[in-house]
Amino acid sequence: MVKSRNENGGELEFLERLRKRVFPSLPRGIALGIGDDCAIFRARGGSEDLLIATDMLIEDTHFLRATHRPEDVGWKALARTLSDLAAMGAEPRFCLLSLALPSWAGRPWVDGFYRGFLRLARRAGAPLIGGDLARAEILMCDVVASGAAPRGQALRRDGARAGDAIYVSGALGGSALGLATGRGAAWRRHLRPEPRLALGRFLRRLGATAAMDLSDGLSLDLRRLCLASKLAAEISPPPVFPGATLEQALHGGEDYELLFTAPPGARVPPRFEDLPITPIGKMRQGRPGAVSLSGAKLPPRGWDHLRSDPLSEPLSDPLSEPRT
Amino acid sequence: MVKSRNENGGELEFLERLRKRVFPSLPRGIALGIGDDCAIFRARGGSEDLLIATDMLIEDTHFLRATHRPEDVGWKALARTLSDLAAMGAEPRFCLLSLALPSWAGRPWVDGFYRGFLRLARRAGAPLIGGDLARAEILMCDVVASGAAPRGQALRRDGARAGDAIYVSGALGGSALGLATGRGAAWRRHLRPEPRLALGRFLRRLGATAAMDLSDGLSLDLRRLCLASKLAAEISPPPVFPGATLEQALHGGEDYELLFTAPPGARVPPRFEDLPITPIGKMRQGRPGAVSLSGAKLPPRGWDHLRSDPLSEPLSDPLSEPRT
Repeated sequence: MVKSRNENGGELEFLERLRKRVFPSLPRGIALGIGDDCAIFRARGGSEDLLIATDMLIEDTHFLRATHRPEDVGWKALARTLSDLAAMGAEPRFCLLSLALPSWAGRPWVDGFYRGFLRLARRAGAPLIGGDLARAEILMCDVVASGAAPRGQALRRDGARAGDAIYVSGALGGSALGLATGRGAAWRRHLRPEPRLALGRFLRRLGATAAMDLSDGLSLDLRRLCLASKLAAEISPPPVFPGATLEQALHGGEDYELLFTAPPGARVPPRFEDLPITPIGKMRQGRPGAVSLSGAKLPPRGWDHLRSDPLSEPLSDPLSEPRT
Repeated sequence: MVKSRNENGGELEFLERLRKRVFPSLPRGIALGIGDDCAIFRARGGSEDLLIATDMLIEDTHFLRATHRPEDVGWKALARTLSDLAAMGAEPRFCLLSLALPSWAGRPWVDGFYRGFLRLARRAGAPLIGGDLARAEILMCDVVASGAAPRGQALRRDGARAGDAIYVSGALGGSALGLATGRGAAWRRHLRPEPRLALGRFLRRLGATAAMDLSDGLSLDLRRLCLASKLAAEISPPPVFPGATLEQALHGGEDYELLFTAPPGARVPPRFEDLPITPIGKMRQGRPGAVSLSGAKLPPRGWDHLRSDPLSEPLSDPLSEPRT
């Protein structure tokens, strides 16, 4: 697996520069651009906003042919993107799949991949309506998912306020534990994450102020939420997946649980369906992006997709040319 | 370049089986699913349809690091997808970019890529509103583009009627010639295709009955249009790009000109802006998908993305398991 840990947010920095350059102001019809889990498109006269997200799943980066069954790869490819819709409280409407197949991926593999993908698509109510197919030296797929939320009501990262309580769903670190051990409930958790779609919609109606999904690890993702909301955060240790370490719960990625904030008076239940909801801290004024755990600074050490081993040179400014 | 020529439509067959399996009937809100240039989403109460397409561009499949400059790769990645919007007469609204970067793609390359991509995005009015970034062993990008058309009025492949005249824009075979020679106007044509967005909208208003973009070669793409419209076609030789062979014009891919049909009485002009519009034949009753050139059968020999050399086994039925 190509992964990395970094302290200063290569991907964050990259995205922020890109956002500033591409969007001095948001174009007509775009309610939210680069920098959140989904972009938001507002059609003329529509009562709903259309949310759209895209996520890649790549051989040797996100999965290994030797250990990941095709059904699991198909499921996970879609689950990652649906999790972005869940984070913003959207109801899925459709998905598209671009799939590049290497020569080793013959018909049984492709069959299995589609079985896993379509099973989740049906369950989530996100029909596959298009995509692209190609050949490549390694297997790679990119999944687009789109969903709807009432106009202006999608949950965003930038809505948290000082004093809001911070919550997570479920227990963290399971995917990292599974990746390390390759067995048991943790491995199944790594292979078949559950996008928290119903929870996300519940939180939107409940009045959560900000939300995102935990794809890259709590320490890095909470920092992102703090940066978007221009606040700091204080947390205590989060719930840990059985058998995982606190380190895995704090910095392991791919749990796909929801991280959210709600005002002190909000009636956040201790469970949603079978899923525990745990308060882990609160948002406060302070240096934007600063997160402390039990009073000590918590460095962001989750996965950063732009600081991985093969790259010696950071991608800090992809857009240096003046606009034309 | 990984390319192939085939006589019996591996990708067509694959997509058709996928479509039948995934869509016994179209889900609510989906006006058009798999099988055309774009899918069509119809938001509740909206006056516009939202069209959405996605296309991959992959190192060693669609471009070579040694010969394609990053500016050209960025431009072409977006041009391919915008061409799908052009084919259906849509006005671009936004795009998303998923980009997987190998270690050789350092900052200068990425800078160049974004310069080319964003230059076309601005020109086309398709702001980049989101996407994904990752590391991979080879460079791969997937571009999603979305555009709008008045409700129910997007140009589709399945609308041609017997007796309609068949037209193409521009001259064909330039991209194939450029790929073969690596120089001159043909090479520039290969590197920087122009999505025919204004022409597509003009054709929609004009009352064209069917349209698609020429991405995989006239012989294969016209067959697809015929299959969608359940008709046959008779054509004469199309306009040939200066220096290209008739073979390249008939079977070469990536010209990104528009292929369309219009009723006999339609006032199709001989030029649109600086672009010639040439009648090349007519649609007729007959075996669906059968195309003849100057009276002889024209086999579909364009590029088929699922029949390329690395694959010994055709992907004929990826969805063999009963629905669950």
